[in-house]
Amino acid sequence: MSEVPAPGGEFGIIARLTERLRATQAGAAGVVLGPGDDAAIVEPAAGRALLATADLLVEDRHFDLAFSTPADAGYKSLAVNVSDIAAMGGVPRFALVSLGARADAGPKLLDDLYDGLGEAAAEFGVAVVGGDLVATDRLVVSVALLGEALGDAAPVRRDGARPADALVVTGTLGAASAALALFRSPDANARPRALLDEFPSLAAAHRRGRARVREGQAAARAGATAMIDVSDGFAADVGHICERSGVGVVLDRAALPLAPGVREAADALGVDASGFALSGGDDYELAIAIAPERVEELRAAIAPVPLTVAGRFTRAEDGEELPRGWDHFA
Amino acid sequence: MSEVPAPGGEFGIIARLTERLRATQAGAAGVVLGPGDDAAIVEPAAGRALLATADLLVEDRHFDLAFSTPADAGYKSLAVNVSDIAAMGGVPRFALVSLGARADAGPKLLDDLYDGLGEAAAEFGVAVVGGDLVATDRLVVSVALLGEALGDAAPVRRDGARPADALVVTGTLGAASAALALFRSPDANARPRALLDEFPSLAAAHRRGRARVREGQAAARAGATAMIDVSDGFAADVGHICERSGVGVVLDRAALPLAPGVREAADALGVDASGFALSGGDDYELAIAIAPERVEELRAAIAPVPLTVAGRFTRAEDGEELPRGWDHFA
Repeated sequence: MSEVPAPGGEFGIIARLTERLRATQAGAAGVVLGPGDDAAIVEPAAGRALLATADLLVEDRHFDLAFSTPADAGYKSLAVNVSDIAAMGGVPRFALVSLGARADAGPKLLDDLYDGLGEAAAEFGVAVVGGDLVATDRLVVSVALLGEALGDAAPVRRDGARPADALVVTGTLGAASAALALFRSPDANARPRALLDEFPSLAAAHRRGRARVREGQAAARAGATAMIDVSDGFAADVGHICERSGVGVVLDRAALPLAPGVREAADALGVDASGFALSGGDDYELAIAIAPERVEELRAAIAPVPLTVAGRFTRAEDGEELPRGWDHFA
Repeated sequence: MSEVPAPGGEFGIIARLTERLRATQAGAAGVVLGPGDDAAIVEPAAGRALLATADLLVEDRHFDLAFSTPADAGYKSLAVNVSDIAAMGGVPRFALVSLGARADAGPKLLDDLYDGLGEAAAEFGVAVVGGDLVATDRLVVSVALLGEALGDAAPVRRDGARPADALVVTGTLGAASAALALFRSPDANARPRALLDEFPSLAAAHRRGRARVREGQAAARAGATAMIDVSDGFAADVGHICERSGVGVVLDRAALPLAPGVREAADALGVDASGFALSGGDDYELAIAIAPERVEELRAAIAPVPLTVAGRFTRAEDGEELPRGWDHFA
C-alpha cells in the first residue's frame, strides 16, 4: 500500500510468532522451506491424493474472548480444520495461518494465540509453513490445512451413503453448545455458573473444539461410505450427507449420546437437552454412514471413544424432515 | 454455534458462488473433488515439490470499494497469491477462498466478487477447490494457493543472492501507489482525476494487481539465485532478499523503470516520483538476483515485458541503507 514509510513492526511480529511455532515443528517431515519466503515448499507423501480445507474464524462469532483465552482461539482455529481432514479419513500435514489483528493489540494477545496454535499443531502433527498478518478491527484467524489420504484407504466423501447404511456418531454431542448457553445466561442465576465448574468438559469443548483424526482414519479403513464432522449441528450435518448422497435418514433421537452435563444444563436453562445434541453444533464429532455389519469392527477400532448408532439411512422419500442448524446468513 | 435454528442462507450462497466458479474450472486437471465436502481432493503432478502461500485482504486496507469494484477485489485477492507462486518460479494450481462478508451484504456484492475471482482463476489456470463463508463487519477475502515447482527448474527462494549478482526487475514500478495517491487527492483538484483518465493503466494496476507467472518461470530456468514479488515496495522487498541472503545491495535509482503516468502523477501531487517506485508497493513485479552474464538470456525470454537492471548485490557491509516500505503494524 502507498503510505508513509514507517519503521518495521509487521515483520518483527511475524518473525517472533514464527519463532514461537518453530519449536513445535523443527525438522518437520516434508517441510523443505517454512515461513519467511513468498511461498512455503513442502513435499507430501508420494502417490497419495492431497486434501485441502480452509476455515475462517472471527472474534465474537466463532470465539468470544470473554469466554475463551487467545490461546483457546488459536488452538480451536487449527483444530476445526484438522477436524475437516479427519472427516475425510485423512492425515493432517501442513497449515497456512493468516491473522487479522488490531494494530494496537499488543504482543501478548498474538503470542498467546500462537501458543495455542502451536499446541494444536504439536498435538495433531501439523507443520505451520506460512501465512499472513494484517491489521483488522477485529481478530480474524484464517487457516488453510493440507492433508494426505491414507495409503491403505481412500478418502471418505459425503456422497456415498446408501439406504440401509447405519448412521453412527463418535463420542458425545451437545457439550460445546450447552457451554455457550451457560456462558450467556444471566449472571444473577448462579446455577449455570456452578454447572460450568461441575462439568469442566463443557467449557473445554466450546473453547478448544476437537478433531477425531484416529477415528476418521479407522472409519475409512472400516469401509465408511460417507462421513462429515459435526460443526453446524448433528441434524444439519447428517442432512448434508443425505443431500449429497441422495438418500434420507431416520434418526433414533433417544439414542443420541449426550455429553456429560448437557442434561443438567438443559434442565437449569429450562430447554430441551436434545436441542443441544441435534442443532447445537461445534461438536467436531464424526457422523458416519457405514454398512450395519461393519459397525462392530469400527466400534472396536476406536475404543475407548464411544460409537453410537443414531439412526439409519433410507431411500430419499422415506427419510424424516430434519431440524436445521445455525446459519449466519439466514 | 448454538443459536436459534434458521432457514438456510449460508449454504445457498455457497452453492450459488460455487456454481459461478464452476464454469471456469469444469474438469480442471488434478481436481478429484471440488467444493462442497469437508475437504477438497486434488492430485498435483507427481514428483514435484508443492508450493503453498496465503494472503488475507481486508476492505479499506487492501482495497477500497470507493475506488475498486467488488470484481476488482475478487480478482486482486487471487492475483496477489498467484504473484507469490510466480515469485518462486512455480505453476499456480489450486486455491481455497474464505470470505467474510456482512450478513446483509446482498447477493450482488458476492456475485460480483466471485466473477472477478473467476476471471483471475481462468486467466492463471487456477481451480478454486474450496473455502469458507462467514459473517463479518467488513469484507475480508482470505486466499490460500497451492502451486507446483517446475519440472525442469527448482523453486527460487529469497536466500540465494550472491555479491556481484545483478538486481533486475520486470515491468514497471509505481503505478498502483501513484493511482492510490491520485484517488485520495482532494476532489477540488481536477488534475489528479484527469491523470487517472489519461493513464488508465494506473488505476488498473491498483485495482487488479498482476502476477508475472511466465516471467517467474523464465527466471527460474535462467538460473535466478533469489526472487521476490514487489508487494511491500521495491526497496523493502529487495531488503528482504538482502536479509535472507546475507548480502547488501546498491540501487541504481536513475534506472528504476517508472510506469507510464507515474512521473506526471508525482508532478501533479508535488512529490518525488521515485518514492512511488521505491516505496509505493502493490506493484507485483518480480525483483530478481541473477548472475550478470545471464541477464540477456532472461531479458530475451520474457520479452516484450521489459527487464531492467536496477542495481547490484554486494557483500553485506558494502550495501546501502534502503528506504523502508509500508507496515500496518509499525
